[in-house]
Amino acid sequence: MNLPESAIDATPSARLETLPAHGVWSPAITPLDADLGIDRERYVAHARWLLERGCHGLTVFGTTGEANSFSVAERMELLEALLGAGVAPERLMVGTGCCALTDSLALSRHAAANGCKRLLMLPPFYYKGMSDEGLFRSFAHVIEGVGDGDLRLFFYHFPRLSGVPVTTGLIDRACGAFPGVVAGVKDSSGDREHTLGLIARYPHLAIFPGAETLLLAGLEAGGAGCITASANANVAVIRRLYDAWCGSGTETGTLDGAVRAVREALESYPMVSALKAVAAHFRRDPTWATVRPPMIALTPEQGADLMSRLDEAGFEPPFAD
Amino acid sequence: MNLPESAIDATPSARLETLPAHGVWSPAITPLDADLGIDRERYVAHARWLLERGCHGLTVFGTTGEANSFSVAERMELLEALLGAGVAPERLMVGTGCCALTDSLALSRHAAANGCKRLLMLPPFYYKGMSDEGLFRSFAHVIEGVGDGDLRLFFYHFPRLSGVPVTTGLIDRACGAFPGVVAGVKDSSGDREHTLGLIARYPHLAIFPGAETLLLAGLEAGGAGCITASANANVAVIRRLYDAWCGSGTETGTLDGAVRAVREALESYPMVSALKAVAAHFRRDPTWATVRPPMIALTPEQGADLMSRLDEAGFEPPFAD
Repeated sequence: MNLPESAIDATPSARLETLPAHGVWSPAITPLDADLGIDRERYVAHARWLLERGCHGLTVFGTTGEANSFSVAERMELLEALLGAGVAPERLMVGTGCCALTDSLALSRHAAANGCKRLLMLPPFYYKGMSDEGLFRSFAHVIEGVGDGDLRLFFYHFPRLSGVPVTTGLIDRACGAFPGVVAGVKDSSGDREHTLGLIARYPHLAIFPGAETLLLAGLEAGGAGCITASANANVAVIRRLYDAWCGSGTETGTLDGAVRAVREALESYPMVSALKAVAAHFRRDPTWATVRPPMIALTPEQGADLMSRLDEAGFEPPFAD
Repeated sequence: MNLPESAIDATPSARLETLPAHGVWSPAITPLDADLGIDRERYVAHARWLLERGCHGLTVFGTTGEANSFSVAERMELLEALLGAGVAPERLMVGTGCCALTDSLALSRHAAANGCKRLLMLPPFYYKGMSDEGLFRSFAHVIEGVGDGDLRLFFYHFPRLSGVPVTTGLIDRACGAFPGVVAGVKDSSGDREHTLGLIARYPHLAIFPGAETLLLAGLEAGGAGCITASANANVAVIRRLYDAWCGSGTETGTLDGAVRAVREALESYPMVSALKAVAAHFRRDPTWATVRPPMIALTPEQGADLMSRLDEAGFEPPFAD
């Protein structure tokens, strides 16, 4: 595979425009009510905030959104609420990869039928050690079942949680069978060499590191940006870093240090609980701290410690505007 | 915890009767049609065959039943078909543990409402590294949500596939909070010491090794029997081994060797695909070989090799009656 001619010698921004998706994307956290149900109103408000503050797009129903703790019906209803509130489907990438083939197909059809053509799919992740051929058939069943040529499939590689890696063998097979539809990878391996290897191997695809810590390295190598949990708290500065790289590049070192410091502080605790604690604290809205089991919320002491670490890291208080 | 007085010095069979469940249980394989939908008629016929040929009970929607490849609705409909065909709910243990808390609760409520009080539950298995407290809250939410004192919860420990172990810390916590409801463990660790450790620690609970290879060792130590995939092909001999142990015990060595040889032959290939190949071959019904992706069926060559290995292992052709 070669880069499209238009991308050769293009400016950084022009190259990014040739990819099936690019920029700073955030997997939105999912607010819950006291009964552990999804609070759609708070979700829509948070999604809007993320987009207004700089996210190019949102991955709804990712790991950070606790997607795998919600039923198919809950996920469909939430997507409909988001779209019903006027969020453009072009700015969404919808997580639809489940254990059950029927669930993955149902969610994918629903997303596509609602105008959301970008899907972020985990492989079926209960059964381990499955062959690439078996995994391919699972994705093929969904792609063929949706039957929409505008579909854009992004593989979600998160072996630490899924236990099922998305291998280059699988990606190659899928690219061969569904050229154009296979659009990218979210690489949450946290392995720099793995991410750079994907970028080198698939220049036509949008390869997103799963954290902003690899944003610059990825962009330099030809990556698409990042899809990062911490954008839920720190979107503005991460976006500034992205824009600096696309522009003059002069500020990137300082900004990269700033986003890393905040990320490190957030990683002192389980990420989803930490992000919800930040939302609860800075929105002055304790309801936000609720997580669905098996996750547990930070204790007040842990929350105070986190806020102190973030403060030391130079964190810009969010949600003030 | 101590054994109930009635169990002290009891005969093997009498001790087993004091447990919340005992015997040889089989996770039934799930037949599919050409469109990968569940074939209820074949399923009911196979379930009946398993019970008639010696299974004390069936675990419906386990790993071997490809449960995690089916939607909540598919699982509910299949359970209803099984009960509607006259299979007694007392002979079932229903798999209801999903990633999503809402799914686990919905399936558990549905099973209990249909008279199936024995639940076999995986912990929520997408998110890894969750605390015992978080996992406990997940199970507690389901138990309290079902709100049926007759519920009997069997933990499903299968760390190789789930990635989320059921620890003694979790079991202790659950036994303390829900005495009587917490009823046992299916231990699919394949680790003899782990299984024997659970049996020693929880004499009131029904501890089932996840394979017949630990049937005898488990029974000797105070275990409940076994829940084993290979019963789908070899139930009669496994049951004979169980009965021999409960009775004179004279034949156990020979029978144990026989079931191990068959198990070893089956394990030459991925278990579910192998069991379905056996069903297709001996039922003379190729449809049975179908699996849902990410699994793939054996090739004709693999199938022939498996049948040859089984023949060498002294396998008794099933489904002849």
